[in-house]
Amino acid sequence: KKTKTVQYGKRGMTLEEEINQSNQFYLERDIAVIHKKPTPIQVVKVDYPKRSAAVIREAYYRQSSTTDFNGVYKGFYLDFEAKETKNKQSFPLKNFHEHQIFHMDKCQKQGGIAFVLICFSIFNRVFLLESEYLSMFWNNQKKAGSRKSIPLSFIEENGYEIQYGFQPSLHYLGAVDQIIKNKK
Amino acid sequence: KKTKTVQYGKRGMTLEEEINQSNQFYLERDIAVIHKKPTPIQVVKVDYPKRSAAVIREAYYRQSSTTDFNGVYKGFYLDFEAKETKNKQSFPLKNFHEHQIFHMDKCQKQGGIAFVLICFSIFNRVFLLESEYLSMFWNNQKKAGSRKSIPLSFIEENGYEIQYGFQPSLHYLGAVDQIIKNKK
Ligand SMILES: [Mg+2]
Ligand SMILES: [Mg+2]
Repeated sequence: KKTKTVQYGKRGMTLEEEINQSNQFYLERDIAVIHKKPTPIQVVKVDYPKRSAAVIREAYYRQSSTTDFNGVYKGFYLDFEAKETKNKQSFPLKNFHEHQIFHMDKCQKQGGIAFVLICFSIFNRVFLLESEYLSMFWNNQKKAGSRKSIPLSFIEENGYEIQYGFQPSLHYLGAVDQIIKNKK
Repeated sequence: KKTKTVQYGKRGMTLEEEINQSNQFYLERDIAVIHKKPTPIQVVKVDYPKRSAAVIREAYYRQSSTTDFNGVYKGFYLDFEAKETKNKQSFPLKNFHEHQIFHMDKCQKQGGIAFVLICFSIFNRVFLLESEYLSMFWNNQKKAGSRKSIPLSFIEENGYEIQYGFQPSLHYLGAVDQIIKNKK
């Protein structure tokens, strides 16, 4: 048996925690309604002790068929995944599952805004990259001799860098505003 | 200890199962991307056996802070809760939690479409009622002598009845089309 260890970046919080905190900020100020979806768990055995809450005694983590976060902002449906890497030069595609890519594609087709928030944890740099670029690299990797990762230089050129701030710590909706502006 | 029993309506499926099936239909035909959110579970103890998947050994069901379903349809953010009642005359408000009502209000404010799908299981009748009506009854109930339920007659007049069909079994997006039309 191994003991569960939580990995913290240099920032003291994981990317997911920073996003949760920013979403809380957005929610309290009526700026947006965005939540992390619960982790899907397959429950096998439940005990129902008298006079107390049901206790799950056997359960397993399941693979999510969608992404980490979704919600609504200025009338737009947002859907995104958060990923961290310790790499310096590029973001490895093996961090994604094919169903996540397909899900984001489907959301875009329905008029939603789908993207990934990528953190290069060594540099403390976070980027928003729209899912169409991710799909492009994903579909290309199957061809012989193709890249299995997205170069940082590509992300710098085609994504939006999110600056760390105070409130919220990660103001990624600023980048979403740019995407909305480009849609019009 | 009690044994868990699953309640089926006369239709042979729960309302939630019917909605899941309809969502699957919508997803496969690129009509909409709508998913049930996983039930939030607080994990307390996990075993990591060698060479096999992590086993959750102690966990508890948590109250969801949002609703059952959300997703995107024709560019609109949809957010809704599904509820069944065995009552004949009215739908009891005690079936809701205050945070669900607040959540739906917040979604509407951001330009989303929030509603509840209410099933009167004795009659096999399903209605879509927009969250603003639900909020109205919810806020009124705190006044002395007010109703603690929404009369079926009110729902018939102000909601949309969903007819059962073959594919999908519950075509609730038909009612959403009406809501979208009225928005324009
Ligand atoms: Mg993630
Ligand atoms: Mg429900």
